[in-house]
Amino acid sequence: MSSIKVPDHLPSPAEDCEQLRKAFQGWGTNEDLIISILAHRNAAQRSLIRNNYAETYGEDLLKELEKELSSDFERIVLLWTLEPADRDAFMVNEATKRLTSNNLVLVEVACTRKSIELFKVRQAYQVRFKRSLEEDVAYHTSGDIRKLLVPLITSLRYEGDEVSKTLAKSEAKILHEKIADKEFNHDEVIRILTTRSKAQLLATLNHYNNDYGNAINKCYQTAELRATMSNECACFQDLKDDPNDEYLKLLRTTIKSLTFPERHFAKILRLAINKLGTDEWALARVVASRAEIDMERIKEEYYRRNSVPLDRAIAKDTSGDYGKMLLELIGHGDA
Amino acid sequence: MSSIKVPDHLPSPAEDCEQLRKAFQGWGTNEDLIISILAHRNAAQRSLIRNNYAETYGEDLLKELEKELSSDFERIVLLWTLEPADRDAFMVNEATKRLTSNNLVLVEVACTRKSIELFKVRQAYQVRFKRSLEEDVAYHTSGDIRKLLVPLITSLRYEGDEVSKTLAKSEAKILHEKIADKEFNHDEVIRILTTRSKAQLLATLNHYNNDYGNAINKCYQTAELRATMSNECACFQDLKDDPNDEYLKLLRTTIKSLTFPERHFAKILRLAINKLGTDEWALARVVASRAEIDMERIKEEYYRRNSVPLDRAIAKDTSGDYGKMLLELIGHGDA
Repeated sequence: MSSIKVPDHLPSPAEDCEQLRKAFQGWGTNEDLIISILAHRNAAQRSLIRNNYAETYGEDLLKELEKELSSDFERIVLLWTLEPADRDAFMVNEATKRLTSNNLVLVEVACTRKSIELFKVRQAYQVRFKRSLEEDVAYHTSGDIRKLLVPLITSLRYEGDEVSKTLAKSEAKILHEKIADKEFNHDEVIRILTTRSKAQLLATLNHYNNDYGNAINKCYQTAELRATMSNECACFQDLKDDPNDEYLKLLRTTIKSLTFPERHFAKILRLAINKLGTDEWALARVVASRAEIDMERIKEEYYRRNSVPLDRAIAKDTSGDYGKMLLELIGHGDA
Repeated sequence: MSSIKVPDHLPSPAEDCEQLRKAFQGWGTNEDLIISILAHRNAAQRSLIRNNYAETYGEDLLKELEKELSSDFERIVLLWTLEPADRDAFMVNEATKRLTSNNLVLVEVACTRKSIELFKVRQAYQVRFKRSLEEDVAYHTSGDIRKLLVPLITSLRYEGDEVSKTLAKSEAKILHEKIADKEFNHDEVIRILTTRSKAQLLATLNHYNNDYGNAINKCYQTAELRATMSNECACFQDLKDDPNDEYLKLLRTTIKSLTFPERHFAKILRLAINKLGTDEWALARVVASRAEIDMERIKEEYYRRNSVPLDRAIAKDTSGDYGKMLLELIGHGDA
């Protein structure tokens, strides 16, 4: 569920553009006005505003924002204003660059977007960078990490809910055998995690829990149970062999992002906020990409794990226009 | 260039459907009438005919054709009448099944279709089979063959013509080193062949020719030269280490399909026709999938290699309505 609030009486894109233009003019910039408009328009509406702005003033709204704003506030406004597929293309490109390399972002985008959306990210990537996403990911990685990332970011998972129980049972067995033998990078482990539909994978992980999990983990059956359980699934636990191994971390992120994305995002937010100095990039990434999708559910998961509402945690950790923008996007009570 | 001939005065889809309906009725089936209509309509026109037929008679034209026709003639008419993406989805599915397994078809479809078309094949596959293509390919293969096929069939190659000379040089070196060491299944060989754009790959193979090829192969520079040269590129030659190794065969097919698809198809046709008993499946596959795309060029390549025009070879090897349909599709002189 989306956390942004679009006003009942929506101004036309032309009216919004006029207001934005005003916000940029004269002495200083009217940040409050910018926030009051952009934070309360959905992706389709923001796209209309960008088009209208280019037609009316002959300038790219994004370029204008870049000129007027700065620092953390600039980043969140720009990320938010980009088309979702283009935003993802930008973020995964950053993640493949040497200096800003971040394989977790690649796994996150590959596993939490719908199949068709991931495809649009790949198209947007080519338009922006004149190369394919898989080309850059494969070029900048090697070994087990490449073996996992390339099929993940090129996947077009089936999204129907048909599930084969026989397959779930046999593939749970394969996963368990390979993991028990510490063959974490086995072709079959990667095949199962990178190609099966989310519904099929959930069935397989449930079988894993039932057949090979300890008692505490045998509660992964339904979405409701998943939401109340305090432990991760057995397969996830069994992949904690070496907590610092990057490949294993990415495998765990794959499983969590595919089967329980809200919990994945809640964890990323927790780590970003608790970090000394706050990881503003991670915070902006999750807020910009999830506000319109499942932020309400992420807030629930965040509260369940931290006993503090997300809005209060963000209000405490951020300030100024930047903090205001984040709070408008995630929706806030009295924070 | 397409080899089919659409009449200048095109009947409406409704008129075509009426004629087809007539062809199915009464004693026997009027095969000539079916050929005279379907072989002379392009994909968009055939699609309109199918829609109109379903609306007017409440029946699926494909089902009707299946009922009325038989054997080789039935196969080519059905393959031809299918939407291109759906036809490919059907063919690659056959290719992943145990009894009709054919990895060469997977390479062919992955490497000779445009990026967006390959994506549509993957979508059509999911609609038809309720699973993803990569899921089935990965499940039915293993080892080096899986390592090659999965990235090929999930690729969305960049199709611009920007080429990096530095990259071409460095990756030609990598290819040459690995191939010289007989590390044909090296991750880097697979990365380069499965992710780079066709333009980039051609530049890389040209560097390979220039820097590591023997004199006879140094003629791979331009499309015109490619077309007149009698030998394959040096890299292709160097992959002939063990002519019967399936993985190496698929690597060679990958290179040829990506850089010189017309020659690949001409070869498939030659093998199909020369085979004792003719490989009707391969013949139908190539004719149905290339008639509207590049059959005129394939005919040129066929003649260059065999000194016999393709239409004459097909006329000699096939008969009846089946032969007639093939000849109408590839366009024929006096054959």
